Amino acid sequence: MTHEELVAGVRAGERRAIGRAISLVERLGPEGRALTAALHPRTGGAWRVGLTGPPGVGKSTLIGALVRHLRRAGTRVAVVSVDPTSPFTRGAVLGDRIRLSDHFLDPGVFIRSMASRGHQGGLAEATADAVLVLDAAGFDVVLVEAVGAGQNEVEIQSLTDTVVLTLMPGSGDGVQAIKAGVMEIPDVLAVTKADREGADALVGELRAALGLVPSGPWKPPIVRVRALEDGGVAELWEQVERHRAFLAEEGRLEARRREGLARQLRALALGRLARRLDAAVPAPELGRVVDDVLARRADPGEAVDRMLARLPLGR
Amino acid sequence: MTHEELVAGVRAGERRAIGRAISLVERLGPEGRALTAALHPRTGGAWRVGLTGPPGVGKSTLIGALVRHLRRAGTRVAVVSVDPTSPFTRGAVLGDRIRLSDHFLDPGVFIRSMASRGHQGGLAEATADAVLVLDAAGFDVVLVEAVGAGQNEVEIQSLTDTVVLTLMPGSGDGVQAIKAGVMEIPDVLAVTKADREGADALVGELRAALGLVPSGPWKPPIVRVRALEDGGVAELWEQVERHRAFLAEEGRLEARRREGLARQLRALALGRLARRLDAAVPAPELGRVVDDVLARRADPGEAVDRMLARLPLGR
Repeated sequence: MTHEELVAGVRAGERRAIGRAISLVERLGPEGRALTAALHPRTGGAWRVGLTGPPGVGKSTLIGALVRHLRRAGTRVAVVSVDPTSPFTRGAVLGDRIRLSDHFLDPGVFIRSMASRGHQGGLAEATADAVLVLDAAGFDVVLVEAVGAGQNEVEIQSLTDTVVLTLMPGSGDGVQAIKAGVMEIPDVLAVTKADREGADALVGELRAALGLVPSGPWKPPIVRVRALEDGGVAELWEQVERHRAFLAEEGRLEARRREGLARQLRALALGRLARRLDAAVPAPELGRVVDDVLARRADPGEAVDRMLARLPLGR
Repeated sequence: MTHEELVAGVRAGERRAIGRAISLVERLGPEGRALTAALHPRTGGAWRVGLTGPPGVGKSTLIGALVRHLRRAGTRVAVVSVDPTSPFTRGAVLGDRIRLSDHFLDPGVFIRSMASRGHQGGLAEATADAVLVLDAAGFDVVLVEAVGAGQNEVEIQSLTDTVVLTLMPGSGDGVQAIKAGVMEIPDVLAVTKADREGADALVGELRAALGLVPSGPWKPPIVRVRALEDGGVAELWEQVERHRAFLAEEGRLEARRREGLARQLRALALGRLARRLDAAVPAPELGRVVDDVLARRADPGEAVDRMLARLPLGR
């Protein structure tokens, strides 16, 4: 496929072209760069929704239920997973529980896992570019799945318009992190496995934790879901839509995207500098620097100077 | 105090000199650099122990109990807190519960909170340098308190010899993170508030989670503590000592410090690049770049090029 064919294919929403395009941007090379440059003018139409939360709370099951819900309404939906523990990543999308196999021939659904290894600090850039490709391909909604609480190098808050934090009964750290102000406040909270013991307690704790943080005009709603039975999924999406309507007022969406983009561009620049540093100071050279510090021939400050002095100048 | 007086004061373990020295390295300027360079040859003698865990599990109370325990044995101990939610940070060290006031006149104890704001990406460097100062000041043990599970920019694993993960009944995310392989395996696990309901269940879950990860010659022990009553604190420290003895064999300590230092130097280099980037692309300039991307006059890749082109490279 030529560059032109690829661009045309993505714009037409062709599955094969989209898959190829994402593989290309994942490589972070000049071809991927040219592709995102060509597709960028066509972006901005998708609603980007982040689903975060600790591993094991059922984010993927919830995503499966959301996809079914959205498809019933005819909404075109793409999923990008950057959770290394996601069944999407582990290739288990055919599993009965997730039932995403329903959508394998449905051109209105596209699911992609960003392999969590081998990006060498470029996962954030590859993910942002994959979302860009899916946006340009005309999906109405792009769901981004990520491990929450800063455990991931991809900063979901700056990449998406609405962030849903997913917690299940027994996940106390998330509540603690909100209470302590360590975690950014999500826009919507989903309590999964809501039929389990402890769900009421978790909702209560979350309410209390949210009460402790200064709140603006948006009060993050808490929705109980039992995704395996699709219970609460419509209500959850309703809250996402409500948040979307909220952002549509008073220029809030533009302000949020501005701020998110500023953080994202900074993160992308730092990711590129990290890859440049790793290329300029490969493992054997870093080993020599470390030896000098351990032998007290250099102090850590000098060692860092030496590493930075090897960075190529200019762009 | 001149540079020479400061260096001599730190080496002599004088409280005032140590405090001044840390304030100086926190500024990340040339004076701090000169100081760490002068002190670096005297380091390596302290045992560095990281205490991580979600906010609210009682890390600071546990540290208070460990300090009392260590002082009874005559061990000189310093504490560096990089947990923004720590009572040390909030200036509550005089609180009855922590009873650290006992040590205010004790030259064998030094407690310092690294303010979590205003470092502009330099918290990791400031913390590493503070630990270096305390090591050079002759403390036998340096405890570093940090929020766990990657919620913090300071990578505790690369800064310390032994990492203690602290969890309390109800903190399910930590267990999930271990199970999923998202969290690095700690060397010792402490279950705080061990008299609470759910402690047995947590110990069981942790054991099961540890059973899922490939294990080497060291099996992380799980210790129950009730720090308010000093219960289990001696046992916890015994396990830290046991880990120390383990590392002393077969060149393991050297290997660990080599690996930790390599990661640390890379992180310090990236931190310095981040500060350089922020200086080269201040907020108004970044705002202009963001405007161009939002107006589709530039794609994100070009925007990052423009940001990086402003960077003065070299040292």
